[in-house]
Amino acid sequence: MKLGFVSAILPDLELEEVLAFANAEGFDCVELMCWPKGRAERRYAGVTHVDVATLDERGADRVRRLLDEHGVAISGLGYYPNPLAPDPAEAQVYVDHLKAVIRAAQLLGVGQVNTFVGRDWTKTVDAQWPRFLETWRPLVAYAEQHAVRIGIENCPMLFSGDEWPGGKNLATSPAIWRRMFTDIPSPSFGLNFDPSHFVWQHMDYLKPLREFKARIFHVHAKDVRLDPERLDDVGILATPLEFHEPKLPGLGDVSWGRFFSVLSDTGYDGPVCVEVEDRAYEGSLERRQHALRQSLRYLRNFA
Amino acid sequence: MKLGFVSAILPDLELEEVLAFANAEGFDCVELMCWPKGRAERRYAGVTHVDVATLDERGADRVRRLLDEHGVAISGLGYYPNPLAPDPAEAQVYVDHLKAVIRAAQLLGVGQVNTFVGRDWTKTVDAQWPRFLETWRPLVAYAEQHAVRIGIENCPMLFSGDEWPGGKNLATSPAIWRRMFTDIPSPSFGLNFDPSHFVWQHMDYLKPLREFKARIFHVHAKDVRLDPERLDDVGILATPLEFHEPKLPGLGDVSWGRFFSVLSDTGYDGPVCVEVEDRAYEGSLERRQHALRQSLRYLRNFA
Amino acid sequence: MKLGFVSAILPDLELEEVLAFANAEGFDCVELMCWPKGRAERRYAGVTHVDVATLDERGADRVRRLLDEHGVAISGLGYYPNPLAPDPAEAQVYVDHLKAVIRAAQLLGVGQVNTFVGRDWTKTVDAQWPRFLETWRPLVAYAEQHAVRIGIENCPMLFSGDEWPGGKNLATSPAIWRRMFTDIPSPSFGLNFDPSHFVWQHMDYLKPLREFKARIFHVHAKDVRLDPERLDDVGILATPLEFHEPKLPGLGDVSWGRFFSVLSDTGYDGPVCVEVEDRAYEGSLERRQHALRQSLRYLRNFA
Amino acid sequence: MKLGFVSAILPDLELEEVLAFANAEGFDCVELMCWPKGRAERRYAGVTHVDVATLDERGADRVRRLLDEHGVAISGLGYYPNPLAPDPAEAQVYVDHLKAVIRAAQLLGVGQVNTFVGRDWTKTVDAQWPRFLETWRPLVAYAEQHAVRIGIENCPMLFSGDEWPGGKNLATSPAIWRRMFTDIPSPSFGLNFDPSHFVWQHMDYLKPLREFKARIFHVHAKDVRLDPERLDDVGILATPLEFHEPKLPGLGDVSWGRFFSVLSDTGYDGPVCVEVEDRAYEGSLERRQHALRQSLRYLRNFA
Amino acid sequence: MKLGFVSAILPDLELEEVLAFANAEGFDCVELMCWPKGRAERRYAGVTHVDVATLDERGADRVRRLLDEHGVAISGLGYYPNPLAPDPAEAQVYVDHLKAVIRAAQLLGVGQVNTFVGRDWTKTVDAQWPRFLETWRPLVAYAEQHAVRIGIENCPMLFSGDEWPGGKNLATSPAIWRRMFTDIPSPSFGLNFDPSHFVWQHMDYLKPLREFKARIFHVHAKDVRLDPERLDDVGILATPLEFHEPKLPGLGDVSWGRFFSVLSDTGYDGPVCVEVEDRAYEGSLERRQHALRQSLRYLRNFA
Amino acid sequence: MKLGFVSAILPDLELEEVLAFANAEGFDCVELMCWPKGRAERRYAGVTHVDVATLDERGADRVRRLLDEHGVAISGLGYYPNPLAPDPAEAQVYVDHLKAVIRAAQLLGVGQVNTFVGRDWTKTVDAQWPRFLETWRPLVAYAEQHAVRIGIENCPMLFSGDEWPGGKNLATSPAIWRRMFTDIPSPSFGLNFDPSHFVWQHMDYLKPLREFKARIFHVHAKDVRLDPERLDDVGILATPLEFHEPKLPGLGDVSWGRFFSVLSDTGYDGPVCVEVEDRAYEGSLERRQHALRQSLRYLRNFA
Repeated sequence: MKLGFVSAILPDLELEEVLAFANAEGFDCVELMCWPKGRAERRYAGVTHVDVATLDERGADRVRRLLDEHGVAISGLGYYPNPLAPDPAEAQVYVDHLKAVIRAAQLLGVGQVNTFVGRDWTKTVDAQWPRFLETWRPLVAYAEQHAVRIGIENCPMLFSGDEWPGGKNLATSPAIWRRMFTDIPSPSFGLNFDPSHFVWQHMDYLKPLREFKARIFHVHAKDVRLDPERLDDVGILATPLEFHEPKLPGLGDVSWGRFFSVLSDTGYDGPVCVEVEDRAYEGSLERRQHALRQSLRYLRNFA
Repeated sequence: MKLGFVSAILPDLELEEVLAFANAEGFDCVELMCWPKGRAERRYAGVTHVDVATLDERGADRVRRLLDEHGVAISGLGYYPNPLAPDPAEAQVYVDHLKAVIRAAQLLGVGQVNTFVGRDWTKTVDAQWPRFLETWRPLVAYAEQHAVRIGIENCPMLFSGDEWPGGKNLATSPAIWRRMFTDIPSPSFGLNFDPSHFVWQHMDYLKPLREFKARIFHVHAKDVRLDPERLDDVGILATPLEFHEPKLPGLGDVSWGRFFSVLSDTGYDGPVCVEVEDRAYEGSLERRQHALRQSLRYLRNFA
Repeated sequence: MKLGFVSAILPDLELEEVLAFANAEGFDCVELMCWPKGRAERRYAGVTHVDVATLDERGADRVRRLLDEHGVAISGLGYYPNPLAPDPAEAQVYVDHLKAVIRAAQLLGVGQVNTFVGRDWTKTVDAQWPRFLETWRPLVAYAEQHAVRIGIENCPMLFSGDEWPGGKNLATSPAIWRRMFTDIPSPSFGLNFDPSHFVWQHMDYLKPLREFKARIFHVHAKDVRLDPERLDDVGILATPLEFHEPKLPGLGDVSWGRFFSVLSDTGYDGPVCVEVEDRAYEGSLERRQHALRQSLRYLRNFA
Repeated sequence: MKLGFVSAILPDLELEEVLAFANAEGFDCVELMCWPKGRAERRYAGVTHVDVATLDERGADRVRRLLDEHGVAISGLGYYPNPLAPDPAEAQVYVDHLKAVIRAAQLLGVGQVNTFVGRDWTKTVDAQWPRFLETWRPLVAYAEQHAVRIGIENCPMLFSGDEWPGGKNLATSPAIWRRMFTDIPSPSFGLNFDPSHFVWQHMDYLKPLREFKARIFHVHAKDVRLDPERLDDVGILATPLEFHEPKLPGLGDVSWGRFFSVLSDTGYDGPVCVEVEDRAYEGSLERRQHALRQSLRYLRNFA
Repeated sequence: MKLGFVSAILPDLELEEVLAFANAEGFDCVELMCWPKGRAERRYAGVTHVDVATLDERGADRVRRLLDEHGVAISGLGYYPNPLAPDPAEAQVYVDHLKAVIRAAQLLGVGQVNTFVGRDWTKTVDAQWPRFLETWRPLVAYAEQHAVRIGIENCPMLFSGDEWPGGKNLATSPAIWRRMFTDIPSPSFGLNFDPSHFVWQHMDYLKPLREFKARIFHVHAKDVRLDPERLDDVGILATPLEFHEPKLPGLGDVSWGRFFSVLSDTGYDGPVCVEVEDRAYEGSLERRQHALRQSLRYLRNFA
Repeated sequence: MKLGFVSAILPDLELEEVLAFANAEGFDCVELMCWPKGRAERRYAGVTHVDVATLDERGADRVRRLLDEHGVAISGLGYYPNPLAPDPAEAQVYVDHLKAVIRAAQLLGVGQVNTFVGRDWTKTVDAQWPRFLETWRPLVAYAEQHAVRIGIENCPMLFSGDEWPGGKNLATSPAIWRRMFTDIPSPSFGLNFDPSHFVWQHMDYLKPLREFKARIFHVHAKDVRLDPERLDDVGILATPLEFHEPKLPGLGDVSWGRFFSVLSDTGYDGPVCVEVEDRAYEGSLERRQHALRQSLRYLRNFA
């Protein structure tokens, strides 16, 4: 597998600096953030390491040159909006930009775009399924046409009261994935698998590796720590950040040895990108870089 | 402690038959259901073993005579509506009937009424807290005036899509109880504690026994079985009946030995009433009576 | 469910005494042993509470009258030989007697016969599968014709060096059951499920309750205790009695609460018969009767 | 095995009442307390159901007659002082009375006396070993001469600051037992085994059942509940009652199914006497009798 | 955090050699031992990397120059005697030297001194609390005046018969810490936290990280392995080295990932110093240096 | 300890290349495979890094020179045939070659040969014990004469149907080792201990480290992952690869921290050689070299 990181944690660095850092630290690849310039609606969002709105052949050439120079690959382009936001106009803005990211991926020869399917968080899964299909069937077809695979991250996007009750991404569980892939069975439609979300949802993150092995296009290495004392106080009906904490790999409840053990047996040989969302490591650029360095060192035990 | 049962599981029996059955099987007490006649809005609701709307001194005398005859006590009067239903008119109906139940408890010399605080399931806890206080401050005062204690069951009333997302009862966790009892600190306001709801909420059901020992007025003995395989498939964000099953005591995940161990150490000496909501035991009256018999036999190991 | 016992543990009692004991102790039913008279080839074998070789209408009438008198039912007729013994002549003797048991079951109106499929213990499963089919296709057809269901106990019949390496019964695991029921899909062909054998085989005994719910015709309540210190010394490749001990229900590793919990959810409502093979309880008839009494008392907590 | 109880919990009843209660509830036997009249130095001590100081042939006849009448046996005579108390004069008083208990056992034909070896709690084990031998070699010889077996309870007698640091009984662990039985290898010198003390000492209570099976003369069925939260606060160096609670069988951490499973396999067939030291059940004679009744009902699941 | 080590494990190296080693291996800091020259009363004691008795401005300059040269910081000065030794004269010697260490810390601009509060091991905690206050109130005031924080290590100093029964340091548990910090509430009085002592005391080492986060001034990274088989034989009343073994981080029962996870969330950003007391790694200087190297490599996974 | 690897995973490299790789990656030693040239009967067999059939003084000089040049030691010579194969002629070929390996070890001054005792897989242990003694008494004597220690790997050599039922190596468990070392008590006869085989045999791999510490001559670092879902389906009577997967250290169920913790306490200071049999890492030479690199990095956490 290729060990990399998600560039969202380095918003203060230019693309070239990101790649130089990756190279210096021994990362194989980076997932580059492609938010529209100027938008920063929530924590970890709004970072633009590739400005897909303006990317042309020349820009793509420049990016490829930088990659060559630094000996680092792009694992995927990342953009994580809510394409099923209740306001259709807002949702359309996300869909349009997602298409731009897809085109950029083709232009760069990357072949992988990571995102969310989104969710109208005020509605049940069933109630919005027709809309999910309406939005995503054309999007997946669009990706197919551009020879790009879409990896949906399995993040519920439900952390605090802002996203209550339903969260902002439908693709949270094997039960829902089966429905997704049955209704939109394209080989371009798959997962950006992050085991940490399964931990706080109290789900086994190993079984899906086998069942969905043909669908796992990309992997995020994030970790979380469940705090039983806090959970005892509020229960699973509380908003999830009331009872767990996102942490670096090795500082949470994911058993990474077990994870890489089963993942390697499925034949997966793609990117595994560290995603830092550990508030204890976010005080400064230096601290965030340390977080990436420490995470890589830890994961090298298993990959 | 006094072992009893919740009469809702015997809707086909008249009060006298309920008491005769309790006596024959060795139960010490019964929690009698007091729904308004003719209403049966959901499973286990709508049972009327005491018609509080019409109960007068003579009626109360008759009930007391039956209790004496059969050597069985009333552990409490039970009525579990949603006094915070979104529709204020509907909520008022519940509040009015709850007052009637309180008056009946006084008339019968029982001193204990069990219910829910209710919840507007479309809103967050914070959003409806002012309404909770408006509704419940007068109700608790009313109970105080009638020398009746109110035991709020800690059931989230969130099982399937019908109650999504918030459920129909706010009083689900120690964190919320603290807030309730701080804002309405009446000695007449307490809990009807059911450990089973803590199991599927992934909470410790022993710690609260100590912290809230002065608030535990009544106990329900229900059990549930968490099914890890089902949970692995849907996660804790699914509706709860997708991953657990209500069962008889001894057939679920509650450690009853541990539960009675800590409960006895807190000095609790009140009623513990079996609540049957196990679908495998509901096929016939005989089967439901067997469920009560089996549950009592099991619990007698520990109390 | 109906709680009963396997009559093999009371070889010193006549049928009538067995039924009287069952009635006195509160058992609902008994699985009656039907070995040919005079044969006693191994521990717990060779008991004849119904002599099927000589049973005729009159004999059957007598049996039915005794059952009525004592208010006890027959859960099934039991005969557990090795119909796939390496010596074809020996195997044929078993097959012939098994047919007699099937006829007797029809005559008695019981409808249930429990047995083993047997195994040539010197051969792999694959190597003897054709012979298994040759032997069992006609046997199952014969049972169908006589309106009798056959319940195969999932006992590996591998305990000591005598049955090494393969044991004397093929039907040991879900993987093999699937193959059995695919190749012989008759509704008369099912299981006499005993969870204890799954414990020492280190298998989950709950999952199969769901998958094979249509095949579970009869249940044995036996328990075993795995002794980790002994297992540490010899490992799973040793003969199984080197690392475990058959025990009464409640004295082993089966979680009977959990077992009955899932079993009841599958809709199973048939017999659950205590099978005593606990050497600490076999010193005298009194001790063996005590074993049955204690087992029933224990199981009544859960059924 | 024979299920009984320790009579210390019924100080308000006369011997005959104790036996009548035992019979009515279905106990097989009772361990009768034989403290000197008038002494009551600590909780659960000072009870005199047989006054050994004055017992003569006629008295013994009367006791035996009562036993016959009520169909109850004496499992042993019990007297639990500190024969190694720092003050030699005090220790001698205990030794002398212990001899009287031994003589009484012979007179009654009981053959079993239960006690402690005692300990000078201010000294290490090594420092007082010579004194232990000096005291106990003659005592064990005395018991041998009177055809009486001595069962030493494995209670550390260290619960609160009063017995700090060493407790008042040396015989607390397998390591010490081996030394005891090596240095005083008499067949009259053995154990009154109580698994509960092993729980709070964080020791396995099953392994010694096998190693010391020839030494287990008598068994106490007491239970304790370790409270992890309390232990987290004070640690194992605190006095033990700071982190655990004595409870009835079934309300603590002893796995009684497992205990009786291994015990029955060792061939033990002697008395198992419920010892009630659960403060939640001590408020009244009725409550203490209920404790015995409940404990017996619970243990009958396993014996 | 800053990873360092305790210099006691390198008694054969001069200060400069210690710092050169630290630098070469990538340690950020060292806790320097400051025992009086020539004293070596117990294992790991008696090491003098800074001779505080003779340290003057010039000496301090030299030390600071060496630190600069080698790019290594002092995490604290360490001196671990028993200031509450039963002999008041002996205790006074320790107190006097501790004051010298405090002055040296100020002189070096270190601000951190690590030690024990000590204990009269023959007395209970309560019995010596007045003396603790008499000794420590002035000592803490002295530290405040010198702008030095005192970190008390939570080591019970109870390992073998020599320190029986009470050990040589009172500050062993959260319960005692609360009492200490209530009675001496100075901001200069805190902890040198070592999770390993909590493991063998069977206590949670994570909860105190949160409760005492303002008091954790310094951290020791030592590990221990509990040996259940040995504990089964002797129980928690034995001297602790009878049932556990001090080991390097990663070779014991501390979950370092979990430890650093919670520690980082508390905002702790101070030193974490490896303390080697693993006898398997003490055979030679080379071996002990290997122990430090291996421990650092292991801990870098998590910090 | 010395960390090395088993050369069987690098069949495509010449001896010198193997040593160069070992040196470049920081390995201390290598176990060199010594199969006869041209034989490759099963996976991981048939590799010849030292051709013992032709090795003479000059050849040995050359090997030693290469070792010096690359700063790498030979941990042992390895050859793992079945010297108890049912066909005596075949077995003799193995025995003869084993003697050649022993002679080569002496010539090279290595002193350590690793192998299997073999097994006639169609027979029980008892049935072939006399033949085991006949074969191995002379072999061990031969090793003694050549000043070579033989380390028997504890691999059952039972993975798939080919080795059913008994596997191809008797030395699988402590119970059998005791018998081996009692019957052939030579100091030249010991173990090449691999903890992974104990995992899938459901045995404790720590206890034997203590009991057999004088017999552990060499250690293999391989790991395996038990897959509970697969085991649930087939049980322990299936062939072992149906329920487990060989994996790199860190990707399986061995707790390497615990393993090295106890191993270091036994005083073991010999070689620990990574043995790669993880199919996910065998696709290319580069991948297999990566497997060795990753395993070493992981193990360096603990040694």
